[in-house]
Amino acid sequence: MLQGNICELSENDSLNHYRFPSIIPGWLDELVFMRILVLGADGYLGWPTSIYLSAKGHQVGVNDNFARRTYDHELGQESLVPISTLKRRVDTWRKVSGEDLETYIGDLTDADFTHSMIAKFNPDAIVHFAEQRAAPYSMIDRAHCVYTQVNNVVGTLNILYAIAEINPDIHLVKLGTMGEYGTPNIDIEEGFIEIEHKGRKDVLPFPKQPGSFYHLSKVHDSHNIAFATKIWGLRSTDLNQGVVYGHTTEQTDMHPELATRFDYDAVFGTVLNRFIVQAVIGHPLTVYGKGGQTRGMLDIRDTLACIGLALDNPADKGEYRVFNQFTEQFTVKEIAELIARTFPSDVKIDHLDDPRVELEEHYYNAAHTKLLDLGLQPHLLSDTLIESLFGVVQKYQHLVDLDAINPSVSWRATQSPVRNDQKGMVVS
Amino acid sequence: MLQGNICELSENDSLNHYRFPSIIPGWLDELVFMRILVLGADGYLGWPTSIYLSAKGHQVGVNDNFARRTYDHELGQESLVPISTLKRRVDTWRKVSGEDLETYIGDLTDADFTHSMIAKFNPDAIVHFAEQRAAPYSMIDRAHCVYTQVNNVVGTLNILYAIAEINPDIHLVKLGTMGEYGTPNIDIEEGFIEIEHKGRKDVLPFPKQPGSFYHLSKVHDSHNIAFATKIWGLRSTDLNQGVVYGHTTEQTDMHPELATRFDYDAVFGTVLNRFIVQAVIGHPLTVYGKGGQTRGMLDIRDTLACIGLALDNPADKGEYRVFNQFTEQFTVKEIAELIARTFPSDVKIDHLDDPRVELEEHYYNAAHTKLLDLGLQPHLLSDTLIESLFGVVQKYQHLVDLDAINPSVSWRATQSPVRNDQKGMVVS
Repeated sequence: MLQGNICELSENDSLNHYRFPSIIPGWLDELVFMRILVLGADGYLGWPTSIYLSAKGHQVGVNDNFARRTYDHELGQESLVPISTLKRRVDTWRKVSGEDLETYIGDLTDADFTHSMIAKFNPDAIVHFAEQRAAPYSMIDRAHCVYTQVNNVVGTLNILYAIAEINPDIHLVKLGTMGEYGTPNIDIEEGFIEIEHKGRKDVLPFPKQPGSFYHLSKVHDSHNIAFATKIWGLRSTDLNQGVVYGHTTEQTDMHPELATRFDYDAVFGTVLNRFIVQAVIGHPLTVYGKGGQTRGMLDIRDTLACIGLALDNPADKGEYRVFNQFTEQFTVKEIAELIARTFPSDVKIDHLDDPRVELEEHYYNAAHTKLLDLGLQPHLLSDTLIESLFGVVQKYQHLVDLDAINPSVSWRATQSPVRNDQKGMVVS
Repeated sequence: MLQGNICELSENDSLNHYRFPSIIPGWLDELVFMRILVLGADGYLGWPTSIYLSAKGHQVGVNDNFARRTYDHELGQESLVPISTLKRRVDTWRKVSGEDLETYIGDLTDADFTHSMIAKFNPDAIVHFAEQRAAPYSMIDRAHCVYTQVNNVVGTLNILYAIAEINPDIHLVKLGTMGEYGTPNIDIEEGFIEIEHKGRKDVLPFPKQPGSFYHLSKVHDSHNIAFATKIWGLRSTDLNQGVVYGHTTEQTDMHPELATRFDYDAVFGTVLNRFIVQAVIGHPLTVYGKGGQTRGMLDIRDTLACIGLALDNPADKGEYRVFNQFTEQFTVKEIAELIARTFPSDVKIDHLDDPRVELEEHYYNAAHTKLLDLGLQPHLLSDTLIESLFGVVQKYQHLVDLDAINPSVSWRATQSPVRNDQKGMVVS
């Protein structure tokens, strides 16, 4: 076991080896530096992250319960780009790269499963994507709200307990969201803010104003992780990620069976991907309200790079740290105009009544220097990327389900239909 | 229905009648001003609050699922002062006061039950005590942590959905805790703080640093309530309560069968009540660590008064407001010294290793003016009150279970025995 050798070399500091570059030229090419367990590895970002880390030479374990694929069935929707089963993805990756991905099928809300998976895989780090991640899904009705909060919060609590009991040195890299902060009228800092108040000072958690029951679940997670890290001396990184766009990565491009999902519907589609689909099929771009909503955004390839950087530079023992994981901020209207400008034919922009309760115009300036300081080289949003996305979508445009695009879930209602074309479809 | 007449008098503002004094001398004595549903009405504070509000002339409904009594069985513990069943309490109150308490037995995590109870009782206001409320209980192990967070968060979500669907004007008065704030090195404000940062200003939620999985559940609730209030235009008051001491109120004193519970064990006993029991039975007062932990505290009679004031002055439509509900702040050591000084015989003070992870000495200065502004006349902690508590405990000192007093639940462990005398007692 080369891993064993490395451990001996750095026996005085079991984390030293994390700080070597992951791939060393020559005979050490196949050296395994870390055992990394990716939770939610069958999802939009979980899958590309898993094979990215595997390609870097880490020993990667993958976990999923296929909740995301079940939401598709529930909503009568599917990824625009066809995706293979996890089994086939793992098999294809083995053929392409020669690397195995140890696979764990199960639900993180099942504490026994979670504990035994972590004990068995014995990871150095865990990357945790495995949460219900769509704000509109959490706002469908009471059952979806409660499901989202219980699923996300309990899954994360089970992980924290398992880490504390099995090996508190396991570095937890958890996906949070920039949406935890909301849109305050002051600059957003990375997790914490120094407050001067009545002649005294303290550095305190940045106040949270999340905008959906999903975003709230991430705020609950953040508070739970910070506390568990403190009492049990864990190592935790909370990545408050912006809106991700893009579809292909160096690894997913290696074989069609390695493709990740591409969502464009009003429930799970992120804004830029959705606009691309609308442009290609000749549907007006659907801007909610005035479109002055400003959000941090990033390229899917930067998601992978950020996670790699967080893993290579683990949190200290007892440290709960927060990185704001995005590279640029745009208003929704700017994104729409950029896509309209880039697309070769005419594109109409529609302003719909905003189904959400949010400020449609507001101040927004969020810090995002910590990942740059670790060496992130951002892929900024360019015409080239947008044109390549047009290409992806054009290939599958015959599969687009127009009725899934316009929003049906209203923040102001306690019960919404999940699709405008099937109002009688009861999902609870 | 006199209630109907009042509603007609104030038809332009359905809340105007809340602002009348609740009891008007003369023929209007029995006038019912509000229908108030008390959730968790069988508990330490829920029961005295229910009969206090009934005595004020409100139509009171009471709900409980007897979770608190079940915890007693689980921990092999019981209230020092014997308490009657809820049925007997309600019957006794009817005999003593002539007032009925409509009773709803059920669990708030059962959404159908919660919805139908609120629809049927049709309250003007809901007072929500119905949560697992002990920090050590939430820290026993994973199962107790998850139970506490799911029970508290889901119950409150179900209430919010029911209010929004049945009548968004129902005023929700929710018990939070001062423990949501933790012990920052700046003054604690009431729920919100104006922050000036890099030349800009905003009023934002006060940053939260809760110190147990229980306290975390209250933070999660606060975020959920603030959001639901905003999107659905609800009326919500979050009472961040300090540590309550005392046992009797004007109403519980009217009959022995109306007594509320008195806890002194390390899991559910609040600090002053526990010290009183220790002094009476000749056990050293158990101060955790240095005892410099400062907490806001209040007399049980002020809890009732504060809830009455919040109800009489409801939140505006769409308003989520926070009152810090305590009257004085003390260090744990000051409380111990006060009791040692007041008790006629010698009292020893023991400093145990702190089973919690918390600062044992820290700055603490928390605002608490909003309830005073509404007219609260505090019962400050006095020798008289302490002497009367000595009396209560002396009457039942033969029932004290010494083994239940010393803490067994450690914050640093992921699994603790619930009692020191029965380490093999498995409760999950």
